[in-house]
Amino acid sequence: MNIGEVLVLSASMLAASVPGPPVADDLQLLYLQEAEMEIDPSQLEDYKAAVTEQIEAATRVEPGVLALYAVSEKDNPARVRVFEIYRDAHAYRAHLETVHFKKYKATTEKMVKSLKLVQTTPIVLGAKLR
Amino acid sequence: MNIGEVLVLSASMLAASVPGPPVADDLQLLYLQEAEMEIDPSQLEDYKAAVTEQIEAATRVEPGVLALYAVSEKDNPARVRVFEIYRDAHAYRAHLETVHFKKYKATTEKMVKSLKLVQTTPIVLGAKLR
Repeated sequence: MNIGEVLVLSASMLAASVPGPPVADDLQLLYLQEAEMEIDPSQLEDYKAAVTEQIEAATRVEPGVLALYAVSEKDNPARVRVFEIYRDAHAYRAHLETVHFKKYKATTEKMVKSLKLVQTTPIVLGAKLR
Repeated sequence: MNIGEVLVLSASMLAASVPGPPVADDLQLLYLQEAEMEIDPSQLEDYKAAVTEQIEAATRVEPGVLALYAVSEKDNPARVRVFEIYRDAHAYRAHLETVHFKKYKATTEKMVKSLKLVQTTPIVLGAKLR
Protein backbone atom coordinates (compact mmCIF):
# COMPACT_ATOMS: atom_id res chain seq x y z
CA MET A 1 0.00 0.00 0.00
CA ASN A 2 1.48 3.34 -1.01
CA ILE A 3 1.53 5.97 1.67
CA GLY A 4 0.29 9.28 0.42
CA GLU A 5 -1.69 12.00 2.03
CA VAL A 6 -2.61 12.00 5.67
CA LEU A 7 -6.04 13.09 6.77
CA VAL A 8 -6.43 14.09 10.37
CA LEU A 9 -9.63 15.68 11.48
CA SER A 10 -9.59 17.15 14.93
CA ALA A 11 -11.26 20.21 16.28
CA SER A 12 -8.08 21.92 17.48
CA MET A 13 -6.00 21.18 14.40
CA LEU A 14 -8.61 22.24 11.90
CA ALA A 15 -9.38 25.41 13.77
CA ALA A 16 -5.70 26.29 13.75
CA SER A 17 -4.98 25.54 10.11
CA VAL A 18 -8.03 26.30 8.02
CA PRO A 19 -9.27 29.85 7.41
CA GLY A 20 -12.92 30.71 7.08
CA PRO A 21 -15.84 29.64 9.20
CA PRO A 22 -15.02 27.61 12.32
CA VAL A 23 -14.28 24.19 10.91
CA ALA A 24 -14.54 22.54 14.28
CA ASP A 25 -18.23 22.80 13.48
CA ASP A 26 -17.69 20.70 10.33
CA LEU A 27 -16.26 17.87 12.38
CA GLN A 28 -19.14 18.14 14.81
CA LEU A 29 -21.62 18.07 11.89
CA LEU A 30 -20.54 14.54 10.97
CA TYR A 31 -22.98 11.83 11.97
CA LEU A 32 -21.17 8.87 13.50
CA GLN A 33 -22.48 5.68 14.96
CA GLU A 34 -21.48 2.12 15.56
CA ALA A 35 -23.80 -0.79 14.92
CA GLU A 36 -23.21 -3.80 17.16
CA MET A 37 -24.87 -6.98 15.95
CA GLU A 38 -25.17 -10.61 16.86
CA ILE A 39 -25.58 -12.70 13.71
CA ASP A 40 -27.01 -16.22 13.53
CA PRO A 41 -23.76 -18.22 13.15
CA SER A 42 -25.33 -20.59 10.62
CA GLN A 43 -26.09 -17.61 8.34
CA LEU A 44 -22.87 -15.67 8.88
CA GLU A 45 -21.50 -16.11 5.37
CA ASP A 46 -24.80 -15.00 3.85
CA TYR A 47 -24.82 -12.00 6.16
CA LYS A 48 -21.28 -11.04 5.12
CA ALA A 49 -22.26 -11.19 1.45
CA ALA A 50 -25.31 -9.00 2.06
CA VAL A 51 -23.48 -6.38 4.10
CA THR A 52 -20.65 -6.28 1.57
CA GLU A 53 -23.09 -5.66 -1.29
CA GLN A 54 -24.83 -2.93 0.67
CA ILE A 55 -21.61 -1.15 1.70
CA GLU A 56 -20.13 -1.30 -1.80
CA ALA A 57 -23.29 0.31 -3.17
CA ALA A 58 -23.60 2.92 -0.42
CA THR A 59 -19.98 4.02 -0.69
CA ARG A 60 -20.20 4.30 -4.44
CA VAL A 61 -23.62 5.90 -4.84
CA GLU A 62 -24.26 8.06 -1.79
CA PRO A 63 -22.27 11.31 -1.54
CA GLY A 64 -22.99 11.55 2.20
CA VAL A 65 -21.61 8.13 3.14
CA LEU A 66 -17.99 8.76 4.12
CA ALA A 67 -17.04 5.42 5.68
CA LEU A 68 -18.67 2.10 6.51
CA TYR A 69 -16.28 -0.38 8.08
CA ALA A 70 -17.79 -3.79 8.80
CA VAL A 71 -15.72 -6.10 10.98
CA SER A 72 -16.32 -9.22 13.01
CA GLU A 73 -14.83 -9.92 16.42
CA LYS A 74 -11.87 -12.26 16.12
CA ASP A 75 -12.81 -14.29 19.19
CA ASN A 76 -16.50 -14.38 18.31
CA PRO A 77 -17.02 -13.90 14.57
CA ALA A 78 -20.82 -13.88 14.86
CA ARG A 79 -20.48 -10.57 16.65
CA VAL A 80 -20.29 -7.96 13.89
CA ARG A 81 -19.63 -4.23 14.22
CA VAL A 82 -20.05 -1.52 11.61
CA PHE A 83 -18.23 1.75 12.24
CA GLU A 84 -20.17 4.38 10.29
CA ILE A 85 -19.34 7.96 9.26
CA TYR A 86 -21.87 10.11 7.39
CA ARG A 87 -21.42 13.69 6.28
CA ASP A 88 -24.31 14.78 8.52
CA ALA A 89 -27.57 13.54 10.02
CA HIS A 90 -29.40 14.26 6.77
CA ALA A 91 -27.05 11.92 4.89
CA TYR A 92 -27.71 9.19 7.46
CA ARG A 93 -31.49 9.54 7.11
CA ALA A 94 -31.16 9.50 3.31
CA HIS A 95 -29.06 6.31 3.55
CA LEU A 96 -31.90 4.55 5.39
CA GLU A 97 -34.23 5.28 2.45
CA THR A 98 -32.02 3.92 -0.34
CA VAL A 99 -32.94 0.84 -2.35
CA HIS A 100 -29.70 -0.95 -1.42
CA PHE A 101 -30.16 -0.34 2.30
CA LYS A 102 -33.78 -1.49 2.26
CA LYS A 103 -32.79 -4.60 0.33
CA TYR A 104 -30.05 -5.30 2.90
CA LYS A 105 -32.50 -4.89 5.80
CA ALA A 106 -35.03 -7.26 4.21
CA THR A 107 -32.38 -9.83 3.27
CA THR A 108 -30.74 -9.88 6.70
CA GLU A 109 -33.85 -9.56 8.85
CA LYS A 110 -33.75 -13.21 9.91
CA MET A 111 -29.93 -13.31 10.15
CA VAL A 112 -29.53 -10.53 12.73
CA LYS A 113 -30.42 -11.76 16.23
CA SER A 114 -29.76 -8.43 17.92
CA LEU A 115 -28.81 -4.91 16.88
CA LYS A 116 -27.59 -2.05 19.03
CA LEU A 117 -26.83 1.39 17.57
CA VAL A 118 -24.41 3.57 19.53
CA GLN A 119 -24.26 7.16 18.32
CA THR A 120 -20.87 8.75 18.85
CA THR A 121 -19.14 12.13 18.75
CA PRO A 122 -15.73 12.45 17.05
CA ILE A 123 -12.68 13.33 19.15
CA VAL A 124 -10.07 12.90 16.43
CA LEU A 125 -10.27 11.03 13.11
CA GLY A 126 -6.82 10.22 11.75
CA ALA A 127 -6.43 8.32 8.49
CA LYS A 128 -3.81 7.74 5.86
CA LEU A 129 -4.95 8.14 2.29
CA ARG A 130 -3.18 6.16 -0.34
CA MET B 1 -16.19 18.13 1.40
CA ASN B 2 -15.38 17.20 -2.19
CA ILE B 3 -16.24 13.70 -3.21
CA GLY B 4 -13.42 12.05 -5.05
CA GLU B 5 -12.23 8.50 -5.14
CA VAL B 6 -14.01 5.70 -3.42
CA LEU B 7 -12.04 3.05 -1.60
CA VAL B 8 -13.79 -0.21 -0.96
CA LEU B 9 -11.79 -3.11 0.37
CA SER B 10 -13.55 -6.40 0.38
CA ALA B 11 -12.21 -9.85 -0.21
CA SER B 12 -14.47 -10.70 -3.14
CA MET B 13 -14.11 -7.38 -4.93
CA LEU B 14 -10.34 -7.21 -4.66
CA ALA B 15 -9.91 -10.78 -5.79
CA ALA B 16 -12.02 -10.05 -8.84
CA SER B 17 -10.39 -6.79 -9.90
CA VAL B 18 -6.71 -6.85 -9.02
CA PRO B 19 -4.19 -9.06 -10.81
CA GLY B 20 -1.18 -10.57 -9.12
CA PRO B 21 -0.97 -12.37 -5.81
CA PRO B 22 -4.29 -13.02 -4.09
CA VAL B 23 -5.15 -9.64 -2.67
CA ALA B 24 -7.84 -11.03 -0.43
CA ASP B 25 -4.79 -11.93 1.64
CA ASP B 26 -3.84 -8.23 1.83
CA LEU B 27 -7.14 -7.38 3.46
CA GLN B 28 -6.69 -10.25 5.88
CA LEU B 29 -3.15 -9.04 6.68
CA LEU B 30 -4.51 -5.82 8.13
CA TYR B 31 -4.47 -5.65 11.92
CA LEU B 32 -7.71 -4.21 13.25
CA GLN B 33 -8.90 -3.69 16.77
CA GLU B 34 -11.19 -1.50 18.76
CA ALA B 35 -10.23 -0.06 22.12
CA GLU B 36 -13.13 0.51 24.50
CA MET B 37 -12.33 2.77 27.41
CA GLU B 38 -13.99 4.31 30.41
CA ILE B 39 -12.39 7.68 31.19
CA ASP B 40 -12.52 9.51 34.51
CA PRO B 41 -15.16 12.17 33.67
CA SER B 42 -13.27 14.86 35.57
CA GLN B 43 -10.26 14.31 33.31
CA LEU B 44 -12.10 13.83 30.02
CA GLU B 45 -10.88 17.04 28.39
CA ASP B 46 -7.29 16.24 29.31
CA TYR B 47 -7.74 12.74 27.93
CA LYS B 48 -9.11 14.10 24.64
CA ALA B 49 -6.11 16.40 24.27
CA ALA B 50 -3.68 13.54 24.93
CA VAL B 51 -5.32 11.10 22.52
CA THR B 52 -5.55 13.80 19.84
CA GLU B 53 -1.83 14.55 20.14
CA GLN B 54 -1.00 10.85 19.97
CA ILE B 55 -3.20 10.13 16.95
CA GLU B 56 -1.98 13.18 15.03
CA ALA B 57 1.62 12.02 15.56
CA ALA B 58 0.93 8.37 14.77
CA THR B 59 -0.97 9.12 11.57
CA ARG B 60 1.73 11.49 10.38
CA VAL B 61 4.86 9.57 11.38
CA GLU B 62 4.05 5.87 11.22
CA PRO B 63 3.68 4.34 7.75
CA GLY B 64 1.82 1.33 9.15
CA VAL B 65 -0.91 3.30 10.92
CA LEU B 66 -3.77 3.49 8.42
CA ALA B 67 -6.58 4.82 10.61
CA LEU B 68 -7.19 5.77 14.22
CA TYR B 69 -10.69 7.06 14.85
CA ALA B 70 -11.33 8.19 18.43
CA VAL B 71 -14.95 8.85 19.34
CA SER B 72 -16.96 9.19 22.51
CA GLU B 73 -20.41 7.79 23.05
CA LYS B 74 -23.04 10.49 22.65
CA ASP B 75 -25.11 9.33 25.63
CA ASN B 76 -22.07 8.70 27.83
CA PRO B 77 -19.12 10.81 26.68
CA ALA B 78 -16.75 9.28 29.25
CA ARG B 79 -17.00 6.05 27.27
CA VAL B 80 -14.42 6.40 24.49
CA ARG B 81 -13.78 4.06 21.57
CA VAL B 82 -10.85 4.02 19.17
CA PHE B 83 -11.34 2.16 15.90
CA GLU B 84 -7.84 1.18 14.75
CA ILE B 85 -6.49 -0.06 11.41
CA TYR B 86 -2.82 -1.00 11.00
CA ARG B 87 -1.17 -2.33 7.88
CA ASP B 88 -0.30 -5.57 9.69
CA ALA B 89 0.51 -6.98 13.13
CA HIS B 90 4.10 -5.78 12.86
CA ALA B 91 2.92 -2.19 12.37
CA TYR B 92 0.76 -2.49 15.47
CA ARG B 93 3.64 -3.77 17.58
CA ALA B 94 5.89 -0.99 16.25
CA HIS B 95 3.21 1.57 17.17
CA LEU B 96 3.31 0.42 20.81
CA GLU B 97 7.04 1.20 20.94
CA THR B 98 6.89 4.76 19.59
CA VAL B 99 7.75 7.78 21.72
CA HIS B 100 4.34 9.38 21.13
CA PHE B 101 2.44 6.24 22.14
CA LYS B 102 4.51 5.73 25.29
CA LYS B 103 4.00 9.38 26.22
CA TYR B 104 0.24 8.98 25.70
CA LYS B 105 0.16 5.86 27.88
CA ALA B 106 2.06 7.58 30.69
CA THR B 107 -0.01 10.76 30.47
CA THR B 108 -3.35 8.97 30.47
CA GLU B 109 -2.55 6.19 32.93
CA LYS B 110 -4.60 7.80 35.73
CA MET B 111 -7.35 9.02 33.38
CA VAL B 112 -8.33 5.62 31.97
CA LYS B 113 -10.44 3.66 34.45
CA SER B 114 -10.84 0.61 32.21
CA LEU B 115 -9.57 -0.56 28.84
CA LYS B 116 -10.80 -3.44 26.70
CA LEU B 117 -9.16 -4.31 23.39
CA VAL B 118 -11.30 -6.20 20.88
CA GLN B 119 -9.37 -7.57 17.92
CA THR B 120 -11.45 -7.75 14.76
CA THR B 121 -11.37 -9.21 11.25
CA PRO B 122 -12.45 -7.05 8.29
CA ILE B 123 -15.56 -8.00 6.33
CA VAL B 124 -15.68 -4.92 4.10
CA LEU B 125 -14.04 -1.51 4.52
CA GLY B 126 -15.75 1.14 2.43
CA ALA B 127 -14.55 4.74 2.51
CA LYS B 128 -14.82 7.85 0.41
CA LEU B 129 -11.59 9.71 -0.20
CA ARG B 130 -11.76 13.41 -0.77
